[in-house]
Amino acid sequence: MTDCRFARRAANLSSALPGALFPSELGPDAILFDSGFAAPELLPHLNAFADVALSAHREEVLQYSPRQGQPELRQWLADLMNADGCALEADDILIVNGAKNGLDLICRLLLDEGDPIVVTAPMYFTAIPIFRSFGAEFVEVSQDGEGLDVAALERRLKQRRSEGQPLPRFIYDVPEFHNPTGATMSESRRRALLALAQREGIAIVEDTPYRRVRFDGEPVPSLKSLDTTGQVLHVGTFSKLVAPGLRVGWIAAERSLIARLIQLKADGGTSPLLQRIAYEFARSPAFEAHALRVREAYRARRDRMISALARTLPEARLAVPDGGYYVWVTLPPGTDGDALAAAAALRGVHVIAGSRFFAASDGGYPANHAPRNHVRLSYSYAMPEQIDEGVARLADAFRTLGAR
Amino acid sequence: MTDCRFARRAANLSSALPGALFPSELGPDAILFDSGFAAPELLPHLNAFADVALSAHREEVLQYSPRQGQPELRQWLADLMNADGCALEADDILIVNGAKNGLDLICRLLLDEGDPIVVTAPMYFTAIPIFRSFGAEFVEVSQDGEGLDVAALERRLKQRRSEGQPLPRFIYDVPEFHNPTGATMSESRRRALLALAQREGIAIVEDTPYRRVRFDGEPVPSLKSLDTTGQVLHVGTFSKLVAPGLRVGWIAAERSLIARLIQLKADGGTSPLLQRIAYEFARSPAFEAHALRVREAYRARRDRMISALARTLPEARLAVPDGGYYVWVTLPPGTDGDALAAAAALRGVHVIAGSRFFAASDGGYPANHAPRNHVRLSYSYAMPEQIDEGVARLADAFRTLGAR
Repeated sequence: MTDCRFARRAANLSSALPGALFPSELGPDAILFDSGFAAPELLPHLNAFADVALSAHREEVLQYSPRQGQPELRQWLADLMNADGCALEADDILIVNGAKNGLDLICRLLLDEGDPIVVTAPMYFTAIPIFRSFGAEFVEVSQDGEGLDVAALERRLKQRRSEGQPLPRFIYDVPEFHNPTGATMSESRRRALLALAQREGIAIVEDTPYRRVRFDGEPVPSLKSLDTTGQVLHVGTFSKLVAPGLRVGWIAAERSLIARLIQLKADGGTSPLLQRIAYEFARSPAFEAHALRVREAYRARRDRMISALARTLPEARLAVPDGGYYVWVTLPPGTDGDALAAAAALRGVHVIAGSRFFAASDGGYPANHAPRNHVRLSYSYAMPEQIDEGVARLADAFRTLGAR
Repeated sequence: MTDCRFARRAANLSSALPGALFPSELGPDAILFDSGFAAPELLPHLNAFADVALSAHREEVLQYSPRQGQPELRQWLADLMNADGCALEADDILIVNGAKNGLDLICRLLLDEGDPIVVTAPMYFTAIPIFRSFGAEFVEVSQDGEGLDVAALERRLKQRRSEGQPLPRFIYDVPEFHNPTGATMSESRRRALLALAQREGIAIVEDTPYRRVRFDGEPVPSLKSLDTTGQVLHVGTFSKLVAPGLRVGWIAAERSLIARLIQLKADGGTSPLLQRIAYEFARSPAFEAHALRVREAYRARRDRMISALARTLPEARLAVPDGGYYVWVTLPPGTDGDALAAAAALRGVHVIAGSRFFAASDGGYPANHAPRNHVRLSYSYAMPEQIDEGVARLADAFRTLGAR
């Protein structure tokens, strides 16, 4: 069946570049700094929880289940977020198939073709094709060490208004341990962002995959916990708390929005088996022990990578992240991150070129103003003893590049 | 946050009537003839398969996984469909979160706001809000004992063309054990439908949840197996083969369409844990034993319900289904199925009024021409000994209704 009406959508999507590699696609000598995979030794032991789910909760987990998600899991998540400063009830939460499904549903709720949205530059690159598939126009706003530059955003909004352009539908950000920059938005910046969004009537989509993977410092209040007007749609996930393969995430938002999101989640609900396994694990003593182990292991890897970079690639500037999975490496102006990533791949070390994290350079726009002197390194998946070797290979690739 | 731009979508969705009840919402005396739930005693024992998944395939099932789905499961599904007359490879298949997620993705691929689609009248009612959320215009075509009336469809297409109306984007049908009518489309009717669809360049969405729940007669070739031009997008599910709670289904279609559907499935892929459990169960000897047990149990329930209806409610006309979960009951003209369902519910027996299965009567259109003298009865969930009692209560409700 050939049908040219398919062509538009296909073209719309074809700009989606391939994501991180799967470990199985590569040889044993490869070192992966490109993925958000969990460290294999940190994957929890879930057999006992699956056994409880399939025995004690047999009917619940094998039949159809309520579309909003299991009440006990939603209550546990409300409690988790309330301990973190929110004031939520179970009914303020919708269970989704991982955070990406959450973003997709939010786009379905809020976006029409051509609607503008605010994103950081750089931004979480997996979200780019999701937003683009809804025909979003990206309004990029820069960041600094305190996160999204709210003053710059305010100027952009003013300018748009003076030019008669529509205001953005929502502001998308990863306020903790930002992917890819690792930056965490300060509390004062968060308050300023919320005040601006409230004044302008723009929603905020707060994506928080790494919020509980903090190594240093005190948590900054989540945007949701500071939200008094229902402006924030908060997206969370068990991918980093438990395991990515569960594909269990959630949206916490004003109840009227949750009601509409439930209607849009027309897939019969997230698997009750996965929800029950996640819940039984989360409420067990194993959960806190696991979270502690995760934080300690990733802190050690971060330290090892930072120290290897400082030793082997002193030309790189980087901000040490207080948590999360990533180091954003800034190389001297003129360095081509794409060429560096390619040269590193030839040496068996896989990183993601910084240009991939700029929405406007993702093929959808004619101009390409994205800075090219960055690469993102993930320390979550490679074994600690691989980190030194991987950074050494990257440094070698960088020097070869400079010598050309 | 109040925003009138949300209102349109909400209005679009608010016509979605509540679905079947969850057993937990009702008292112990309630008899449920309204749901597509599996019989509790037929739910398979999956503990051992989950244990294998979480031990032998630990990394695979807990990390991120390929978006198209696990290759072994896709190969197993290709083999299953090839044994049923198709000629597929693993790459012709996309794993989805249940058949409903498959329908949703197909709509995202094929529909623009206002596009017409062909549906049967009556049709699977859970698909109505899914299609409606994409702004589809429903072109209803009647059925007879051989399934969708292809001659009537041909006349409708000719008429649309002569009036300058756009041709439908796809034809949606459940060709085996149709939900709600139980009818199975004959082979000659299938060939005629395919020929028409090919001639007019219209896709066919073949939804097959009950294909392997056949009690009587020989299988009729699937539309996909008769398809030589890539016209058919075939949707399958493990919900009836294994358990609804797994939320694992699949789409089999031309590879170029699969490639686009993979891009649209932006949720990070269906959980690899669920896929591995489904696969380990499906390839084990337990699977065929389970399928046999399912067929025998539902055949017995069907027989019991048909016989109770014949005995207790002789006014009802019905066609005995050769498989599936449902009996479509036609009552004498003038009977109000909505009033009957309400009267039955007062007696603790839950059925779905026939009017709910007509897309054009779902609140989206001003005119309401749907016949009202039907109810749908499911025999899958109620215990066999409840069936006689439930039908007796329904008959009692019917007579009270007549006496008013």
